[in-house]
Amino acid sequence: MTKQFHPNLNVDALFLGPKSENAVFFREMMDYAVSEHLHWRSGFHPEDSTLTTSVDRYEHDYRETLYCTEGILNQLSAKLKNTSIPFFSPRYQGHISSDTLMVSNLAYVMAMMYNPNNCSYEASPTTTELELESGLDLCRMFGYNPQQSWGHITSGGTVANYEGLWVARNLKTLSFAISQHSKAKDLIDHKTSRQLKNMPTTELLDLITELQKRGLFEEIREMTCRGTGVKAEILGKLLVPQSKHYSWMKAADIFGIGQENIISLPVNENYQTDIAQMRKITFELIEQGEPILAMIAVVGTTEVGAIDRIDEIIALRKECEERYGESFYIHVDAAYAGYACSMLLNEQGEFVEYDELASYHRSVGIMPENISWPKPEVYQSFKALKEVDSITVDPHKVGFIQYAAGAICMKDKRILKLISSHAAYVFEDNDDKTNTINRGILGSSIMEGSKSGATAAALWAAHRLLPLNINGYGKIIAAGIVTAQRLLNKLANLSPIEIGKHRFEVHTFPSPDFHMINFTFKEIGNESLNNHNALNKRLYELCSYSTGRAYTNDFLTSSTILDYKEYGDTPWHYAERCGFSRSEWEKVRNIYVLRAAVMTYCLRNEEHFEEFWQQLQAIFVKKLIQIVDEEEKKAILRLSLDTSFIG
Amino acid sequence: MTKQFHPNLNVDALFLGPKSENAVFFREMMDYAVSEHLHWRSGFHPEDSTLTTSVDRYEHDYRETLYCTEGILNQLSAKLKNTSIPFFSPRYQGHISSDTLMVSNLAYVMAMMYNPNNCSYEASPTTTELELESGLDLCRMFGYNPQQSWGHITSGGTVANYEGLWVARNLKTLSFAISQHSKAKDLIDHKTSRQLKNMPTTELLDLITELQKRGLFEEIREMTCRGTGVKAEILGKLLVPQSKHYSWMKAADIFGIGQENIISLPVNENYQTDIAQMRKITFELIEQGEPILAMIAVVGTTEVGAIDRIDEIIALRKECEERYGESFYIHVDAAYAGYACSMLLNEQGEFVEYDELASYHRSVGIMPENISWPKPEVYQSFKALKEVDSITVDPHKVGFIQYAAGAICMKDKRILKLISSHAAYVFEDNDDKTNTINRGILGSSIMEGSKSGATAAALWAAHRLLPLNINGYGKIIAAGIVTAQRLLNKLANLSPIEIGKHRFEVHTFPSPDFHMINFTFKEIGNESLNNHNALNKRLYELCSYSTGRAYTNDFLTSSTILDYKEYGDTPWHYAERCGFSRSEWEKVRNIYVLRAAVMTYCLRNEEHFEEFWQQLQAIFVKKLIQIVDEEEKKAILRLSLDTSFIG
Repeated sequence: MTKQFHPNLNVDALFLGPKSENAVFFREMMDYAVSEHLHWRSGFHPEDSTLTTSVDRYEHDYRETLYCTEGILNQLSAKLKNTSIPFFSPRYQGHISSDTLMVSNLAYVMAMMYNPNNCSYEASPTTTELELESGLDLCRMFGYNPQQSWGHITSGGTVANYEGLWVARNLKTLSFAISQHSKAKDLIDHKTSRQLKNMPTTELLDLITELQKRGLFEEIREMTCRGTGVKAEILGKLLVPQSKHYSWMKAADIFGIGQENIISLPVNENYQTDIAQMRKITFELIEQGEPILAMIAVVGTTEVGAIDRIDEIIALRKECEERYGESFYIHVDAAYAGYACSMLLNEQGEFVEYDELASYHRSVGIMPENISWPKPEVYQSFKALKEVDSITVDPHKVGFIQYAAGAICMKDKRILKLISSHAAYVFEDNDDKTNTINRGILGSSIMEGSKSGATAAALWAAHRLLPLNINGYGKIIAAGIVTAQRLLNKLANLSPIEIGKHRFEVHTFPSPDFHMINFTFKEIGNESLNNHNALNKRLYELCSYSTGRAYTNDFLTSSTILDYKEYGDTPWHYAERCGFSRSEWEKVRNIYVLRAAVMTYCLRNEEHFEEFWQQLQAIFVKKLIQIVDEEEKKAILRLSLDTSFIG
Repeated sequence: MTKQFHPNLNVDALFLGPKSENAVFFREMMDYAVSEHLHWRSGFHPEDSTLTTSVDRYEHDYRETLYCTEGILNQLSAKLKNTSIPFFSPRYQGHISSDTLMVSNLAYVMAMMYNPNNCSYEASPTTTELELESGLDLCRMFGYNPQQSWGHITSGGTVANYEGLWVARNLKTLSFAISQHSKAKDLIDHKTSRQLKNMPTTELLDLITELQKRGLFEEIREMTCRGTGVKAEILGKLLVPQSKHYSWMKAADIFGIGQENIISLPVNENYQTDIAQMRKITFELIEQGEPILAMIAVVGTTEVGAIDRIDEIIALRKECEERYGESFYIHVDAAYAGYACSMLLNEQGEFVEYDELASYHRSVGIMPENISWPKPEVYQSFKALKEVDSITVDPHKVGFIQYAAGAICMKDKRILKLISSHAAYVFEDNDDKTNTINRGILGSSIMEGSKSGATAAALWAAHRLLPLNINGYGKIIAAGIVTAQRLLNKLANLSPIEIGKHRFEVHTFPSPDFHMINFTFKEIGNESLNNHNALNKRLYELCSYSTGRAYTNDFLTSSTILDYKEYGDTPWHYAERCGFSRSEWEKVRNIYVLRAAVMTYCLRNEEHFEEFWQQLQAIFVKKLIQIVDEEEKKAILRLSLDTSFIG
């Protein structure tokens, strides 16, 4: 790993800024990136004769081609300026998008010009190393042993989730394959037939090592589902929280598991997986002799940012192992909140004790007196991540990298042997045999093939600038958390807004686990959930691209629908907080909420936040006036239509 | 589609150039891209107060953070300059990599700063449109009806192949699902049970339409493998050419099909799928009542660039339909050669008749008198692409876009209904109902989730500058083909090179289908295939990054091993051409060959090529001298060791 001088980072110096405050630096570095590449080209075999002279470059068709290129870039710029979303601004608080790090944008451009392909080392001698180094950074953050684990970049969190499921699925069929092989089945003789269905991950990985010693591994690998195809009865059930990202439905389809083999784990009032229910379902499955393909947990749900109790899930697994001699694979989807683990680590990368964390955060200046993060149970969840088998984490979310960059970390890289393949036309001898991963052909150990090395450069640069601890990423992430908590507090305590005879109050989701806040405006006196939903849907529309150019809007957010179909009666708790009757909930069975992932670093200073909040209040008033006006016009129109009928 | 003024393109004006010839233009446009974005930011709500003042920016920690950023970029640049591969240079002729279009690099940078995410329209109002427009450009090139087809960008060709297999697999289980539903099974009453196993794609897609009319589609979709999981006996066999890319092995694993359900189709001497054998295998499967999951064909194999007879495969399918009332899904992996279809299209996007093609190419000035492309059967293959069900094509290969950009085109977009899903937290009403595709959430119709909108901007810009016809892409692609043919001709006719008492001759693969050439150096008199392989492996090492910095090398290429395991006895034909005995082949059973995808546009001028060839000959002599020297040193060492033993 490259040793880096680590300054006391100033967060404002990391981003281009909402007014392009760092324009001079950004331009200078962009120019540097381009210059370096230009000279690299012209310095390659300078003795070669020039194929295009400056005279050629003044030919008519040559100029015309350049003009045409310029014209297309003009068009593209016009399109981008017209309809893009100003994610960079503190006025955008919606999807998990924000400003991105200058260093990663610059690193991407720098590397892109060399056009490395991280599918094979031969096509990316520089950036394959950077990908593996960045992957290990993430493993270390989660507490994985860097000697045994591995991590790498995927095109996004969806593909990272796929890879987690892929290894889990193939691993699931290993014990069955071994039991079918006369020269291997003695290895699992001591297991009952039920225990064979749910063997612990580590035992299975040790069996791979043993099979390799016996020279049987490749043969037996062909007898896993990789070779034979999926058999639903061997795989069993995939347990996924109700709050699941839709990528899990796609995953169950793609991997041939079948969506009907997903068991939805109920969530509690805070949209975290209900551990008691999970426990009950798990025990029932085990007692019924049903295999558990994998247990999926979420660290930062897409809709409310809820963080599952990973420590409790680990405890449950331990209990199953002790009680039944059975176990299950755990994959954590930490696409959204994974990077927040860095908020808990000191400069040596060690977890700071919970009792010391608040004062540590304050001493570094990232948390003011009245705000702290995380709650004890969230802390325990992060601390337990080192026990799970694989973790999805998205650099293009809270890693503040531009799209597209997901990542997966696997606790024990021996698991890759179950999925790896080999391309004959790229034959590298530098297969890192002791380390399992084929550095020569990354494409043979992952789902994708050709992939951009520039993404690896961008991520590597970000990790070098911002170590994955409180003094690095912690600083930016804390800024979002602080702002989210302030905003939530303001919203929760907002006095009713009066517009003519209408009065609106705000209801918030209480104590979010991370920096996503959900809220709705409610007209006081309105008892119709449908009207409530319509009001908030309209508010969203007025705060989004859908009612006009986002660029000219004052505030942009996102929204979601919490529906009975996904969540059962869980959203009822919030509907009740808003004052709706049970019968109203049972009639409508969904609630439309505004949703803001608060990631901006710009409002961490309290004065700046107060100024923003004053603006935001005025904006909400303006939007509500518009809605009231629209409703009144509709009412007049209805009345005049009625009159005309009467007339 | 945007109407564009189309100049007479000068190929040299499209790329940065081997000596950064277009440095001034590139810098100017990069500066434009950056400026436009900087002003977009500062123009957004100019009334907002500045959060970081210029005084803040001179604080110590602020400067330190910028210096640290700069330091990391310095490090990255040093790494990139030290170990990157000069793909841009005509001295690189190896993997399917070359210089990339300025316009796509610039468009990427331009769009990246806005950070659009094409997973959902809400996060990418500009670039989702550009992705769909670029996808349709590709559909049109292949002759698909743009009203019925769709295409989109994937992270690479591997993922595109996965998507093709995904729809094919789910479609395969539709007839079975229908047969299980009491209110739907009348729709397939007229089929025999064997015919149900292999129904034509169009009939199945019409059934989807019919099921939607009956309001049964969603229910029945849950009864396909998407809902129930894979059952191998329903899916049957996946037919893939022996020349298959390793992504098909991964695909059979991932999709739960099982690698043992792949049937390898033998290839002929030219590495094209042997149609007679394919026919035999297909008929046998049908007669045995075995379903055919899909037929994979390749347009441009990764190892030799062979192009399968798509027209013959279409004819075979027609024959099966007429003879048995059975059919199969056809997916073409045209990742490598797909863009070459543009070499056959006039400015209206119509196929030029074969008889007129050579003179058309000459009239546009892209082919000299003595060179023509393609062979008649390759032409027929491209012309038949419009009949296949889906096609993979990689913009990051012969589309001259930087990594990572693959693409897939599907002939009939109704097939998406079998895989589409929905994310509750992104609810867009602009579902393009008549057009099937959910523009609101692209992520719900594709395999990936979050993805870079900048890639779409890069591809869109390339397609606008270079129409997908002879006058656009045709010009760059022709340059590579012309150079490949010249190089092949020179190599094939090279007089033996004498190094001391050793004489080396070159053997080439005859008449490649596209612009990949394969060859080996052979020592005259050597009868050992192992020695031959060792010689060429060493030559490759001396022409690659593996024996030193690529930047200081004179010539860079790639290589592959043609092995009995993959190809059976096919490589024997080449071994025989090189003069090896049958028994020698049977002993070694693989042959190591040098492999050059000739994509450079720089050598299309004959004089430039001749100069390059003079250089290249000298380089080969130099490398051979080094090898002879190394061997002699080894021999002396062996001798001295022997002597010392004797001593």
